[in-house]
Amino acid sequence: MSVEEYADVTVVGAGLAGLVAARDVRRAGLSAIVVEARDRVGGRTWNRPMPDGWTIEAGGQYIGPTQDRLAALAEEVGVETFPTYYEGRTTWRGARTPETFELARPVLDELDRLAAEIPVEAPWQAERAREWDAQTLHTWLSSRVTEPTTMALLRLAFSSVLAAEADELSLLHVLTYIRSAGSTSMLTDVAGGAQERRFSGGSHLLAVRLAERLSSPTGTDGAGAMGGGGVRLGSPVHRIRHNRDGAVVEAAGRLITTRRVIVAVPIALADRIAYEPALPSSRRQLHQRMATGVTIKIHCRYETPFWRADGRSGSALSPEECVSAVFDDSPPDGSYGALIGFVVADRARALARLPAGDRRAAVVGSFVRYFGRQAMQPTHYAETDWSTEDWTHGCYGSNLPPGAWTRYGPALREPVGAIHWAGAETSAIWMNYMDGAVRSGERAAAEVVAALAGTPGGGPAVQAK
Amino acid sequence: MSVEEYADVTVVGAGLAGLVAARDVRRAGLSAIVVEARDRVGGRTWNRPMPDGWTIEAGGQYIGPTQDRLAALAEEVGVETFPTYYEGRTTWRGARTPETFELARPVLDELDRLAAEIPVEAPWQAERAREWDAQTLHTWLSSRVTEPTTMALLRLAFSSVLAAEADELSLLHVLTYIRSAGSTSMLTDVAGGAQERRFSGGSHLLAVRLAERLSSPTGTDGAGAMGGGGVRLGSPVHRIRHNRDGAVVEAAGRLITTRRVIVAVPIALADRIAYEPALPSSRRQLHQRMATGVTIKIHCRYETPFWRADGRSGSALSPEECVSAVFDDSPPDGSYGALIGFVVADRARALARLPAGDRRAAVVGSFVRYFGRQAMQPTHYAETDWSTEDWTHGCYGSNLPPGAWTRYGPALREPVGAIHWAGAETSAIWMNYMDGAVRSGERAAAEVVAALAGTPGGGPAVQAK
Repeated sequence: MSVEEYADVTVVGAGLAGLVAARDVRRAGLSAIVVEARDRVGGRTWNRPMPDGWTIEAGGQYIGPTQDRLAALAEEVGVETFPTYYEGRTTWRGARTPETFELARPVLDELDRLAAEIPVEAPWQAERAREWDAQTLHTWLSSRVTEPTTMALLRLAFSSVLAAEADELSLLHVLTYIRSAGSTSMLTDVAGGAQERRFSGGSHLLAVRLAERLSSPTGTDGAGAMGGGGVRLGSPVHRIRHNRDGAVVEAAGRLITTRRVIVAVPIALADRIAYEPALPSSRRQLHQRMATGVTIKIHCRYETPFWRADGRSGSALSPEECVSAVFDDSPPDGSYGALIGFVVADRARALARLPAGDRRAAVVGSFVRYFGRQAMQPTHYAETDWSTEDWTHGCYGSNLPPGAWTRYGPALREPVGAIHWAGAETSAIWMNYMDGAVRSGERAAAEVVAALAGTPGGGPAVQAK
Repeated sequence: MSVEEYADVTVVGAGLAGLVAARDVRRAGLSAIVVEARDRVGGRTWNRPMPDGWTIEAGGQYIGPTQDRLAALAEEVGVETFPTYYEGRTTWRGARTPETFELARPVLDELDRLAAEIPVEAPWQAERAREWDAQTLHTWLSSRVTEPTTMALLRLAFSSVLAAEADELSLLHVLTYIRSAGSTSMLTDVAGGAQERRFSGGSHLLAVRLAERLSSPTGTDGAGAMGGGGVRLGSPVHRIRHNRDGAVVEAAGRLITTRRVIVAVPIALADRIAYEPALPSSRRQLHQRMATGVTIKIHCRYETPFWRADGRSGSALSPEECVSAVFDDSPPDGSYGALIGFVVADRARALARLPAGDRRAAVVGSFVRYFGRQAMQPTHYAETDWSTEDWTHGCYGSNLPPGAWTRYGPALREPVGAIHWAGAETSAIWMNYMDGAVRSGERAAAEVVAALAGTPGGGPAVQAK
């Protein structure tokens, strides 16, 4: 038997997007229930407890300039930030010749110029949208670059940022991505870019504190009266029956009658829900094409941040290494050393095929080649392979192959009857980032509140079985 | 409450692939149950009854040379074929200058030569696979063709064959497709090609007769003893719990304990099933990328096949028309006239956005421009938009964007524990065609029979709840 509930608005997914959406809906005096498949909130932000007693920040963890909605949320829930350690020199392996950078710079500049031509809310309306969407990033890069190490460096930059290879991506998608963040350097940089600062206690705290407030029996969050509702964990949604006036959301053991639904999960998961009636074919075709990136995030701890003594920042990059991008992840007081590494796209696919011992050897081998023999014996080691997470499917976000933005782009945010769409993928600004997730939740909540304003409450036309 | 059943093998999907698989499994003396979401068998073959009393062949309908497994099936179940009417001249609008064809021919010849380099069972192993998979068909065509009408003609040829546009498709996918069929002309031609002959009574009869035999209480099909089982309609599968030794297949109102599962539905639908444990990430990434084509099939009937009197075959092609490809679909005795038209890819997306009256006007307008004013008043008119079919998602088949074949191609047929994969998409020969569907069913059944040979029967390790 299922628990039957009613809420004005039902939010699917308790990641940042869904929790922010529920917050805003309740601030408008409407009730909101968030249903979440996992037994935790936070989605792709996660303070993951490891079996041997330590905790890693397994998902998104950075905040940078212009990520204003994420910053506002952090301030609201009282989570501090601190700068990513970035003193000293970046460690490079391969591709590091002045000539390589000299050849790469104009290519990045040209991408920035093209990206500036894109209307951020409607990339498909760019004057050259069809031309850009008809080719892969690889095709475009190949027309600009012939020198192999420069090409390797550029491919590294984009696979690090998108967790997909240049030959999988539409050029229009990449330009949209750049436009969405502001510039290529905003995407790639630590200081002045998306990796500039970290959250004290982990980004996961944002979601945890939002969820606490949503579940608070007092019904207020300090910002005035709130509608009722709460967060229901362990409740994967398998079906949404809907029409223009409302919906019934069916989750494991739970049946929620509601006036509006906000689906705030990655596209690959949104596609796993059965919609009755079926979604319009443009939306279904979008679902068939938008694919998650592939990322394995690595955590290594050491007694000390020994690389700093060598004048190294802990940042390391190489197109030749399994772990192609590394950052210093030590605590602010430097009481121990920590490195995080990103294994992305083809490197992640290759690594995932190895047995565990070989994976660790490959990863630690990269760290040793970057930082020397002291890197050989981490006190703690962890891998988080997001493509094996059933309720995520892949990280960091989702990408589109050629031909999709120009055909299905408008379906990304367009509501379908009582169903609205949120999630980092749906944000025009900082798409696929935590800041984009927050913005998407705010946007979807505003849509829903506007739609319900002035309409009478009460039961929707769709009836629970 | 669910009906609980047991079968050695459970087949998901009663299209040609699934029914053929079940036939072969039962011929090996094993029991097989086919579960089908719809209330009919046949999948993308369908004698669709229209409200006003006529019937159309709404799905795949042709058989051509080298489609030997489809031919063998037709003979086995006693369905005759007859030649597609093709006497007289093809009607062209636009793009028809000798120069256009002269410029297009070498491009098609080059594609045929490149396709011949592809190992049919493993396209990702072609020497130039990565190069071909890193670009769209559009990029490659643009490097060969500048003359606009030639480009339009080539784009028409491929969108007609794949129901997707050149800028959505990996060049490697297109080459694989050509290799799978034999040549570009095998794909495009009526006489000597994939559109050469039709089935008396419709291709749907193949599935109907296979299903009758599978449901026969005598348990034999004239080819020796058969295991038990049958076809269960109206039973969409929503979950498969599986391990190496067996599975429990959960469908609406039905719980089947089984030793092996053959999933024989399009990839987009295979992805809608919940797998426990989750599929390996390579398979899940494949699911996220393989997208159905977009096709609206048109049927128009007239008192007579009036175009024949003008010396026209009824075949018509134009890059300028909404209905870009038309064939004579009259009955063999010519007792009335019938035309079928294909509205594909971008044309289908545009047509689907119009209201019904405008759609019909646009379609009939194409027919009038091809064949004159006599085409203006069909006695019967029908559209079948396969992208709105919940249990298909799109036709004719599924395609891959750049970067996918080289990364996820091997996952297309590789079994996952007790789960095997069939369906036209999975066939190395005549991929996406009915012949490919038959071959895939035969291949998957052979895999399962080999896997179960010599292993003890009895209940699998996965238990029904």
